[in-house]
Amino acid sequence: MTKAADAGVAAGRDRWPAGAAWMEGSYCPVEEAKISVLDLGLTRSDCTYDVVHVWRGRFYRLDAHLDRFSASMARLRLDPGLDRAGIEAIVHGCVRRAGLREAYVSMTCTRGRTAVGSRDLRTATNTFHCFAIPFVWISTPDQQASGASLWISQVTRIPPQSVDPAVKNYHWLDLDMALLDAYDHGAQLVVLRDLTGAITEGPGFNVFAYVDGRWLTPAAGTLEGITRRSVIELASEVGQPLEQGLLTAGDLRRAAEVLITSTAGGIMPVTVVDGRPVGTGTPGPLTAQLRDRYWARHEDPQYSTPVRYN
Amino acid sequence: MTKAADAGVAAGRDRWPAGAAWMEGSYCPVEEAKISVLDLGLTRSDCTYDVVHVWRGRFYRLDAHLDRFSASMARLRLDPGLDRAGIEAIVHGCVRRAGLREAYVSMTCTRGRTAVGSRDLRTATNTFHCFAIPFVWISTPDQQASGASLWISQVTRIPPQSVDPAVKNYHWLDLDMALLDAYDHGAQLVVLRDLTGAITEGPGFNVFAYVDGRWLTPAAGTLEGITRRSVIELASEVGQPLEQGLLTAGDLRRAAEVLITSTAGGIMPVTVVDGRPVGTGTPGPLTAQLRDRYWARHEDPQYSTPVRYN
Repeated sequence: MTKAADAGVAAGRDRWPAGAAWMEGSYCPVEEAKISVLDLGLTRSDCTYDVVHVWRGRFYRLDAHLDRFSASMARLRLDPGLDRAGIEAIVHGCVRRAGLREAYVSMTCTRGRTAVGSRDLRTATNTFHCFAIPFVWISTPDQQASGASLWISQVTRIPPQSVDPAVKNYHWLDLDMALLDAYDHGAQLVVLRDLTGAITEGPGFNVFAYVDGRWLTPAAGTLEGITRRSVIELASEVGQPLEQGLLTAGDLRRAAEVLITSTAGGIMPVTVVDGRPVGTGTPGPLTAQLRDRYWARHEDPQYSTPVRYN
Repeated sequence: MTKAADAGVAAGRDRWPAGAAWMEGSYCPVEEAKISVLDLGLTRSDCTYDVVHVWRGRFYRLDAHLDRFSASMARLRLDPGLDRAGIEAIVHGCVRRAGLREAYVSMTCTRGRTAVGSRDLRTATNTFHCFAIPFVWISTPDQQASGASLWISQVTRIPPQSVDPAVKNYHWLDLDMALLDAYDHGAQLVVLRDLTGAITEGPGFNVFAYVDGRWLTPAAGTLEGITRRSVIELASEVGQPLEQGLLTAGDLRRAAEVLITSTAGGIMPVTVVDGRPVGTGTPGPLTAQLRDRYWARHEDPQYSTPVRYN
């Protein structure tokens, strides 16, 4: 499949630094990666995805992302038409063709299109695509230096009874509408609550608050983030107490420190909640310690895998 | 924009009977209509759409569909970059190029892509596309002759507190997962309930049940279907009592008649609910009367508009 193309990459041709994609069986510049407007991945958002990142030429926790992606596809009864090794090869292939040392790599499996004239989902041919683009920050490095501002939205997060949040999905209208509202209030980020008023998550990130002597993060109703998992492990390593449970809006507002976690940026400090400063109003020492450890892990072979650039 | 292309259509060239689309400023066969995998309409399902149909060369209630589409876009703060007359011209243009007398015409406005390196939704350039394909039936004519089978799902419909159901949207994972489950139970269609257990809607349709001497349909928590509106008007015209209110699973199971409504098929009888026959187990006379009137309306200039084929 890729031998001839790889020769082109090795020879310096077929390099697309703005981003490379794998689409319908071959690689292309990401600008050319397009999906049919009849694909149920668009017209029903009937698809799942996962995102892994590359830092200094190494994937961070690629196995964990591939595990989660497989579980999500199984849950939605989707078949990408590729085994795990095949998907892994494409993930490497996209980064190789983009030639990026720091990248955001997204893989998606969609329901595809049903047979002509049928609406029976079981007749659909599922599709798979993948792309690598330059690294994406939810909170820019500048914002991280001073800490981001977070708004607590009135919009309710889509509940687990409707869409399983453990299956990474593109049902983001609640998140996007909440974000537009947060902008109106001068905030950069937003977090949503569940039907009981408990904090859940924001667009693409989990949230942690340091209250009453320990980190608190929602135990349920959110994506099981892999950066979230890293924070739980790292807090244990450095002896910062941490609890998974109920996080309220009140907890967020009175916290000494608040941080968010995402593959798109790692561990990022929040210093303003609902327009009021968090603690001293500057990124806190507990967050800084976790963040330093998180980035150090990116060179640890236990958590990272070198990209096959050749 | 379209003068030269229209000359081609008039001359018999540029006819695409499998479907015609309008994408990025020009017409193309629907098979070539594709959207970037980076578009937030895909990666966040941040978009809205509407569907109008053509029957015997006439649009049914085109104005009502264009009104609803405009309202949905305004609600999501989306700008298609076209005024109403521009959208209407494209809707006609797609049907003209497909050359279809019976068509399903879908128009979509997406958030588009943010500026390079930014995740700020306000930097996104919204996109618009449209396509006309051969008419689609949710319940096939064969199924309608005998009546369809409907399953009452355990999956909860995404609640209005999360995503406004009056904004026609592609958040269908709850509906699709429920439909896959319905197939497992031998049913063709599925209907979902809200958090309180009340019936809401199915994938692409509203539902009505004739119980205790009147039609009953959910008053809230569903799309404000235009075929639903037709049923409400037609029932009044022919003197069939109708009430918008709370519809329970119990009501559906003990109803004398059940029907569903959708642009994709009109008014369609349901004769099996949860594996048990509805009434006599055959399509009922009240449904038949409404259905006849519904199709007759398609030639009434008050409700229909001739396609501009030339």
